[in-house]
Amino acid sequence: MIDGIKIGNRRCLGKALTLLESKKATNKHQANQLLDTLMPLTGSSIRIGISGSPGVGKSTFIEALGRFILENNTTHRIGILAIDPSSPLKGGSILGDKTRMPYLSAHPKVFIRPIPSSGIMGGVSPHTRECILVMESAGHNIILVETVGVGQSEYTVSSMVDVFLFLQHPNAGDELQGIKKGILELADIIAINKSDSGLEKAAEQAKLFHLNALKISRGEKKHLPPILCCSALHNKQIDLIWKAINDFIINQKKSNNFLTKRAEQITTWFEHELFEQLHSKINKMAHTSHIFQQYLNNILLNKQCASSAARELTDMIKI
Amino acid sequence: MIDGIKIGNRRCLGKALTLLESKKATNKHQANQLLDTLMPLTGSSIRIGISGSPGVGKSTFIEALGRFILENNTTHRIGILAIDPSSPLKGGSILGDKTRMPYLSAHPKVFIRPIPSSGIMGGVSPHTRECILVMESAGHNIILVETVGVGQSEYTVSSMVDVFLFLQHPNAGDELQGIKKGILELADIIAINKSDSGLEKAAEQAKLFHLNALKISRGEKKHLPPILCCSALHNKQIDLIWKAINDFIINQKKSNNFLTKRAEQITTWFEHELFEQLHSKINKMAHTSHIFQQYLNNILLNKQCASSAARELTDMIKI
Repeated sequence: MIDGIKIGNRRCLGKALTLLESKKATNKHQANQLLDTLMPLTGSSIRIGISGSPGVGKSTFIEALGRFILENNTTHRIGILAIDPSSPLKGGSILGDKTRMPYLSAHPKVFIRPIPSSGIMGGVSPHTRECILVMESAGHNIILVETVGVGQSEYTVSSMVDVFLFLQHPNAGDELQGIKKGILELADIIAINKSDSGLEKAAEQAKLFHLNALKISRGEKKHLPPILCCSALHNKQIDLIWKAINDFIINQKKSNNFLTKRAEQITTWFEHELFEQLHSKINKMAHTSHIFQQYLNNILLNKQCASSAARELTDMIKI
Repeated sequence: MIDGIKIGNRRCLGKALTLLESKKATNKHQANQLLDTLMPLTGSSIRIGISGSPGVGKSTFIEALGRFILENNTTHRIGILAIDPSSPLKGGSILGDKTRMPYLSAHPKVFIRPIPSSGIMGGVSPHTRECILVMESAGHNIILVETVGVGQSEYTVSSMVDVFLFLQHPNAGDELQGIKKGILELADIIAINKSDSGLEKAAEQAKLFHLNALKISRGEKKHLPPILCCSALHNKQIDLIWKAINDFIINQKKSNNFLTKRAEQITTWFEHELFEQLHSKINKMAHTSHIFQQYLNNILLNKQCASSAARELTDMIKI
């Protein structure tokens, strides 16, 4: 499987991603081994997060952006983690991608992995980061991660990507009410999509509206993210968006922010994994550990409070 | 201080609660000792959670309910954890309570602790549960915990109380849109407040509306929580609410649910405390532990993935 992934074999790649998402303990062990082996091949892509409310045109935008990239550069290979609204929890439907992204789903240099949207956190699974790594190891040097605007998922995705792109409707005033405060703060680039079919003027107004909102929230003097109008449906101004993404990445690399951000993301990822695994260790312990049960009994009998019991138990833990 | 709390001395009680909320390490140790000593005196109260959107009249309702309880039973002592919208992070303003709950704040058998609303989670602090315990040990046999309807806080409070009361506006249709799905699921009793000044009919409609909504979400055949109209401002039907609370508690005790629920709450509390303390131990470790740093370096150098490193590190932890 590892050799297959290295040469970009689709079937191997698909199998590997399925293995990552498995909840079986033995599979988890295998998945870790796989990831450890592939790690040296990861990290050299540009990771792009794409978010926005339902109906803003995320898949059409990804189709347009991916197409533009491929038509202008023959060396790029694109890995996409796309939300699949039609899919059940397992596997995802290939038909869904074919309808939503007809050009990309048929392109030999593109690998699309549907993430079931029925999962927690608006399409972001705990394994999204690992999926990114595996796609990188298979030679994809541009990774697009789609997420739907429900709040938590944006934070999660922005902690995995190098640049976070936020799509907005042209009817900005109402729309801005709908999104949670702080989400817009995460945006490195804002694109007002659907600037077509008579909505061009509204899109320009939305651009101004967002500019003012950002000036207020981030402060006049601070560097504000570029706000661009585009039409994914008609492939208009997609070149400007791609330029803005590249400019952002170049600036990040110049100022050394690129590597600093990645190192921070990796540290957070490690701490998060550690908490998660400790959490499940504690859950297991609740059923098996004699000491845990002893403390629990004391608390249940009002002999001790939970915080002091937890402190004593934590003090016993040595690493 | 302990002797003072035992005889219900207000100053000692206030000092103890301030100690619990302190973030200093030495104070935390003292707070744990204090709690351990008081634990045998806790657990015999009825713990009532009161929630609802801002403006639904929570403090007026608590004033009316508390007054009704005290006027009809001379043995009850009431401890209240009330959200103080006017208070800064420390201490809370006594004036706030005097205005919001004039009768209760002047009553010798009532102790009100303001929780600053500027804190996280809509007024629920990580120490709310500990505050309940200390108030119980000071002889308060009825505990009222106010929380504002922001989602997370309701779950937290419902995991601390025996009965969860949810207040609603008479303009139910709109209101129901505003509250998060699932919050209503937590309610043991629903009270449509402000059934006065011409809103009586709207309140009855809201009652029907909630009944239908609950039938759909919980299923026709399941036991539904009582839905009652009341006017806290005019002390109307508060007796029915108090009866509903008592009926619920009596039923819970009959079916043995009362103690089962408390045991579950305590177990969750312990697990949560343990997780929190392990969490902070790991945070400290991230700066000091050689092994942690070694793993982190490996991950940063793409030699290992975070999940397998976390697994190895977790396996090293022995209790």
